[in-house]
Amino acid sequence: MSKLVECIMNFSEGRNTEVIGELGETISSIPGVLLLDHSADQNHHRSVFTFVGTPEKAIEAAFQAAKIAVERIDLTKHQGEHPRMGAVDVIPFVPIKEMSMAECVTLSRELGQRIYDQLGLPVFLYEESASAPHRRNLADIRRGEFEGMPEKLLLSNWKPDFGGVSIHPTAGVVAIGARMPLVAYNINLNTSDLNIAKAIAKIIRESSGGLQCVKSIGVMLEDRNLVQVSINMTNYETTPIYRVFEMVRIEAQRYGVSIAGSEIIGLTPMNALIDSAMYYLQLEGFDSSKQVLENYLLQG
Amino acid sequence: MSKLVECIMNFSEGRNTEVIGELGETISSIPGVLLLDHSADQNHHRSVFTFVGTPEKAIEAAFQAAKIAVERIDLTKHQGEHPRMGAVDVIPFVPIKEMSMAECVTLSRELGQRIYDQLGLPVFLYEESASAPHRRNLADIRRGEFEGMPEKLLLSNWKPDFGGVSIHPTAGVVAIGARMPLVAYNINLNTSDLNIAKAIAKIIRESSGGLQCVKSIGVMLEDRNLVQVSINMTNYETTPIYRVFEMVRIEAQRYGVSIAGSEIIGLTPMNALIDSAMYYLQLEGFDSSKQVLENYLLQG
Repeated sequence: MSKLVECIMNFSEGRNTEVIGELGETISSIPGVLLLDHSADQNHHRSVFTFVGTPEKAIEAAFQAAKIAVERIDLTKHQGEHPRMGAVDVIPFVPIKEMSMAECVTLSRELGQRIYDQLGLPVFLYEESASAPHRRNLADIRRGEFEGMPEKLLLSNWKPDFGGVSIHPTAGVVAIGARMPLVAYNINLNTSDLNIAKAIAKIIRESSGGLQCVKSIGVMLEDRNLVQVSINMTNYETTPIYRVFEMVRIEAQRYGVSIAGSEIIGLTPMNALIDSAMYYLQLEGFDSSKQVLENYLLQG
Repeated sequence: MSKLVECIMNFSEGRNTEVIGELGETISSIPGVLLLDHSADQNHHRSVFTFVGTPEKAIEAAFQAAKIAVERIDLTKHQGEHPRMGAVDVIPFVPIKEMSMAECVTLSRELGQRIYDQLGLPVFLYEESASAPHRRNLADIRRGEFEGMPEKLLLSNWKPDFGGVSIHPTAGVVAIGARMPLVAYNINLNTSDLNIAKAIAKIIRESSGGLQCVKSIGVMLEDRNLVQVSINMTNYETTPIYRVFEMVRIEAQRYGVSIAGSEIIGLTPMNALIDSAMYYLQLEGFDSSKQVLENYLLQG
């Protein structure tokens, strides 16, 4: 059957329900595109739409929604808790079915070219699509936010991949890229000592020498009187869920603390969990693409 | 989207490639039916075809293939290692998507009525479709095999659900029913002592007081010099994979024996493995129908 790509569009609008509704309707109106999830946050003043579709249809839906955002969202009047640099802030493509990462990179470039050509919105390519190592990380691109972008674009190493040296006056700039699916994963510890969660979060995260593709912080869960290691996994193939779980378990033992439970937030690809089942069950020679019934149905 | 049912047809023909090919072509020729797997065994003189489809199309494919079997397979000349009672020996329906077990039972009854009415093949309903407790188990129905069926059908408690007191002269009888997906699961032990595998198999199987919906035997893997607990799980929701694995692990400890590995044979539903991942990762509040990405694609 056909190739499928997932697209997660982040818009700097979490309050105007008319605009948010229009964005959702625009995406849903494209045949061959399935809107999986959408959420809006008033404090962050931000909304997120997740959809899947064939590559051609996904680009079309992303472009049409970006057009609405450029027309309807004015960042000169935008104040929210979440950092942002554009009306449509970030658009990652994720390979889902019969898509390579290289094909997703091509897709992100096509959309970027079209968005600059037709909407005049400068585009940074990020993650797997990045044109230089210092532009891989979204946080690095977004640093300075909307207000700092006019100055940033003048720097020789922050020229947009598509666009000139000026931002769009009201819509700013956008980051577009290809990446693996994110897994948002939290592990709760049987203690109320936040220092323990923070210490473990520091040990496991990549930025302080821990596991690759893992971001983590320690937080307090007031209502449960427990602490949590809150984790974002940017590549569950490089660092699988069970390895994160086991490393947290082992580090918590140092403090005589056990794991109370864990949770996955939002969507996860089937293989991120099947991989953990395979580890714990010591499964030999299991090929999920050939042995999981649902994978046949997805081909049908 | 549409309801989907899986159908696994077992035929008493594993040698005549022309007949086997005809069965496969007949099933594949029905639009809306997807042939997932087929295998033929010369020693067993038996072939198995697994397909999915909408309920209406699955019944049509099963009927057309049964018709071929009745016309082309003659059990009066059949000799193989596998016990058998009919040209088409057994036809289970398994709920896959948006199907309840009750709907699969209805489906099995519709097919049974049609097979008797149009092909003159007497039908026993088994498993979830059984009309009496002593007729749930396929092995009980099949006992006596093709040669013993004429006499068996005369017994008051072995009257077919559809059909009279005579078998079809060349095609015998068939069992049709609804059941959960089977999971064929083997656990290899780090020992060459077959008695240990046999002892553990006895402890875990339902028939000797072990786990519900578990059948198991101990076997020797000559090429690896290991023993194996070979398991059939007839309902992975009642008894999940991780519980079987952990019980084998615990019982093996008594002998100082560890688990070398485990293996899943053939197809398994995604949830049979996700359930084990949830157990080991202590996942709280995870809903695979809403949080596994592929489940959305299957609805699309």
